[in-house]
Amino acid sequence: MSLPCKTILASTIAKPFTEEVENGVSQLGRKPRLVGFLANNDPAAKMYADWTGKTSESLGFEYDLRVLDKEDLEEAIVTANNDDEVDGMMVYFPVFGPGQDSYIQQLMSPDKDVEGLSHIFIKNLYHNVRFLDAPEDRQKSILPCTPLAIVKILEHLGVYNAVLPYGNRLYGKTVTVVNRSEIVGRPLAALLANDGAIVYSCDITGIQKFTRGEGLSLKRHNVEDVKDMDIQKCAAVSDVIITGVPSASYKFPTEWVRYGAVCINFSSEKNFDPSVKERAALYVPSIGKVTISMLLRNLLRLINNKVIRQEEIKEKEAKKAKVEE
Amino acid sequence: MSLPCKTILASTIAKPFTEEVENGVSQLGRKPRLVGFLANNDPAAKMYADWTGKTSESLGFEYDLRVLDKEDLEEAIVTANNDDEVDGMMVYFPVFGPGQDSYIQQLMSPDKDVEGLSHIFIKNLYHNVRFLDAPEDRQKSILPCTPLAIVKILEHLGVYNAVLPYGNRLYGKTVTVVNRSEIVGRPLAALLANDGAIVYSCDITGIQKFTRGEGLSLKRHNVEDVKDMDIQKCAAVSDVIITGVPSASYKFPTEWVRYGAVCINFSSEKNFDPSVKERAALYVPSIGKVTISMLLRNLLRLINNKVIRQEEIKEKEAKKAKVEE
Repeated sequence: MSLPCKTILASTIAKPFTEEVENGVSQLGRKPRLVGFLANNDPAAKMYADWTGKTSESLGFEYDLRVLDKEDLEEAIVTANNDDEVDGMMVYFPVFGPGQDSYIQQLMSPDKDVEGLSHIFIKNLYHNVRFLDAPEDRQKSILPCTPLAIVKILEHLGVYNAVLPYGNRLYGKTVTVVNRSEIVGRPLAALLANDGAIVYSCDITGIQKFTRGEGLSLKRHNVEDVKDMDIQKCAAVSDVIITGVPSASYKFPTEWVRYGAVCINFSSEKNFDPSVKERAALYVPSIGKVTISMLLRNLLRLINNKVIRQEEIKEKEAKKAKVEE
Repeated sequence: MSLPCKTILASTIAKPFTEEVENGVSQLGRKPRLVGFLANNDPAAKMYADWTGKTSESLGFEYDLRVLDKEDLEEAIVTANNDDEVDGMMVYFPVFGPGQDSYIQQLMSPDKDVEGLSHIFIKNLYHNVRFLDAPEDRQKSILPCTPLAIVKILEHLGVYNAVLPYGNRLYGKTVTVVNRSEIVGRPLAALLANDGAIVYSCDITGIQKFTRGEGLSLKRHNVEDVKDMDIQKCAAVSDVIITGVPSASYKFPTEWVRYGAVCINFSSEKNFDPSVKERAALYVPSIGKVTISMLLRNLLRLINNKVIRQEEIKEKEAKKAKVEE
């Protein structure tokens, strides 16, 4: 008998978003320009840069890869921040190392940060704030690409229940996330908990539980340390297991996966053994193509926010003029 | 803060099915005739009979209520079985009592049994056989109205995951059913387990677990007695709780319901306290309107099966004639 697991490829999930992005570009009537800064000699970064270029150009964007010495990176970012010809930008990390790279990341103007890692975006994510311009609430806050890609994947897989009200669509679901990096794992746990899930966030330092409280009593998630559970116990109660361990030797033990679970791997390494299909109902072995479509979607959103921002300024000026009349 | 629970009314869920039934009748080009036999003095049965009549007539059916003495019921059914003017029929039970009522039920021709309680239909349900005419598989087996209504409700509520292959769409879901009657609870548990769920079927005699085995290894469900769990423990691991206790005093304890669970009551009494909304994500307080739309849908299906049956007979005769040529 064949296994009941269905493997879903990132290309399948990305399809409606690449179409959305293509339509967005054609409505815009010009080629949005994405600048990539490559300031290391990492062949993986070079590969990712080439792949971003290929995808973005195929969808109607202009991709401008700037290969440079790391000493010139800071000034190049400042120049691009002030260059009206640049719509969005990203740096291929690592360049200097965690501390300084984080400084470099924050140097990019949030108005051009396609990866959605600027402090203001991450802060909004943690606080479950979805717009940049309260109380107008028209400029959408940008979400970091990889966590956003995973949300879109969970929507595609039917884990988000569209019958529930927007903002609570993971109510009743339990998720284990193996990775608590600042770039993906921690914002992802917060994002899923803000949408109503119970999330067990696991890394080598231990397990944290992200929830909006019993009966979703809180407006945003709360975090507590969990002492009496290990990853196996988390998996035993989880509808979804998401892995992001950057190690070729790491494998999530198949026997820990609940029968009928949804398994998603966002690591560039394969964190699940193929035997996971003996237990999972749905398996997404990699997510890169969804992530890149979110990157380009974010770029269009940044452009749209800019238009709204200018409208809002005009409206305010008009109001002011009327009061002064 | 308002509770995150959404109450969904049976009328909302029934709507696409009443439309489907109306369209089916208008395509048929004649009024299908449903006969109801009322042979008791139960006011609840009378009310249900009137309500069936009102609904079926409003959707384009002809409803023929035959009020009679119970001594005349058997002969009246035999007559209706052989009457080409009668498309479907049902008896308003109880009439004699469980044993003899079951005999009466089986007396109706399966070709006219709108409630789907004929032995052949129930046997097919338990064996996960979905057609009446293997190997052609064109005449769909009829499913009993109330279990079928609950399946349609679970589809509406997003519990069936349409991303999973047909037949496995409850894989990964756990359901508690409080009622194991032969009319609803037991066939319902089997139906949901056949679709991939783990089902805890509870009544006063104890708890049974219906599953298709680990990793859905079986083609149809298996039943085992569960000794180490009570209803509270079943509820604690259940995504869905379905109640059908015919008692005004019975209430499923709200504190047993998992936060974010789906709660459905098919009893004519309210088995959940209104406080269930403090814990459930979705709550369906009654299901009658969905059940009646399934009754009429079954009637159209019986008519359609008859057409297919006649086609199949013609095709076989044509084949036979060709061989003999």
